[in-house]
Amino acid sequence: MISQRLEQQMAFIIEVDKIKQIYRRNYVIGTDRHETDAEHSWHLAIMAVLLSEHVTGYPVDILKIIKMVLIHDIVEIDAGDTYCFDAQAGMDKEARERTAADRLFGLLPLDQAQEMRALWEEFEQRVSPEARLADALDRLQPLVLHYKTEGKSWRLNNIVSAQVRERNKRTKEIAAELGQLVEQIIQDSIARGYLRESK
Amino acid sequence: MISQRLEQQMAFIIEVDKIKQIYRRNYVIGTDRHETDAEHSWHLAIMAVLLSEHVTGYPVDILKIIKMVLIHDIVEIDAGDTYCFDAQAGMDKEARERTAADRLFGLLPLDQAQEMRALWEEFEQRVSPEARLADALDRLQPLVLHYKTEGKSWRLNNIVSAQVRERNKRTKEIAAELGQLVEQIIQDSIARGYLRESK
Repeated sequence: MISQRLEQQMAFIIEVDKIKQIYRRNYVIGTDRHETDAEHSWHLAIMAVLLSEHVTGYPVDILKIIKMVLIHDIVEIDAGDTYCFDAQAGMDKEARERTAADRLFGLLPLDQAQEMRALWEEFEQRVSPEARLADALDRLQPLVLHYKTEGKSWRLNNIVSAQVRERNKRTKEIAAELGQLVEQIIQDSIARGYLRESK
Repeated sequence: MISQRLEQQMAFIIEVDKIKQIYRRNYVIGTDRHETDAEHSWHLAIMAVLLSEHVTGYPVDILKIIKMVLIHDIVEIDAGDTYCFDAQAGMDKEARERTAADRLFGLLPLDQAQEMRALWEEFEQRVSPEARLADALDRLQPLVLHYKTEGKSWRLNNIVSAQVRERNKRTKEIAAELGQLVEQIIQDSIARGYLRESK
């Protein structure tokens, strides 16, 4: 018989398989299929490995950033994906996600539940350099996918450039060059007709 | 303008989006949809975070294990998914995957290309404790999904218990309790009729 500890770990690992059934607004490059939260989280983790060096002015703990991005969307298993440009749905998002975090992280052994919950809270608060980079990547990754799918999701949802700039405005504060990349993608998206410029 | 270094990093990050279009033999729990390589890699990374403590007798570098599982299937973008029970396709797998590794990791700046390539080689060789755990998780994760989808993929592909035991036989050497978990899942799968017992 396996220990209760491993049983709890496996209960969590099996439960979070459901994140593969949560579809986001953006598309996988070269397809008409929406990306799943699991795929998005994998992509963020790869970006964290490769791009954490761009954080300016602070030493960062890469392992912490990776853990954060791996678990940051798990709450959507219960709370659903809230579209980032939907102000209405955003209003009770925090309460829904906190209840989800209680249930989901609560499946784990206490020490791991506490660690994962604290990482999720830190990500949500965006206070530490690690959380600020994780948050910037969580905005940069869909920006790149929107750009590489010719702005399909932006056009379907009537998104304009001011909204995209607003959403990515803090990136330059944590990683100056990633901020330049964001602006370059926005400008090129406007020039190519993928994103409508707001006057 | 962004640096050549960031351009190379982004070229890799965009190219590996294709891993979301590589479908594996196993199903996502509760669905009739095959899992993608990106989803599988995300799940392995979560398992690495939570289960690395079960490695017996060696200190392990969790960050290294996570990086390994995040990138271990990237070569399948060029080489395709080789079904683990397909001996024929397995014969030229190594050559196809090495060529893929040259091209894909070669997109990165040299230092990161070398680091990722070395991690992939280490995973493939299975010599270090980190690589042996990553490999054990890469076998345990589909085992759990097969079990939780009532052995659908095993039945469709005429897989018997001896093949599953053979495929997971090394798990107990790197993590004794995970080895017990493997045996428990196999026995219960046979008892429930998900997996045919080989005499």
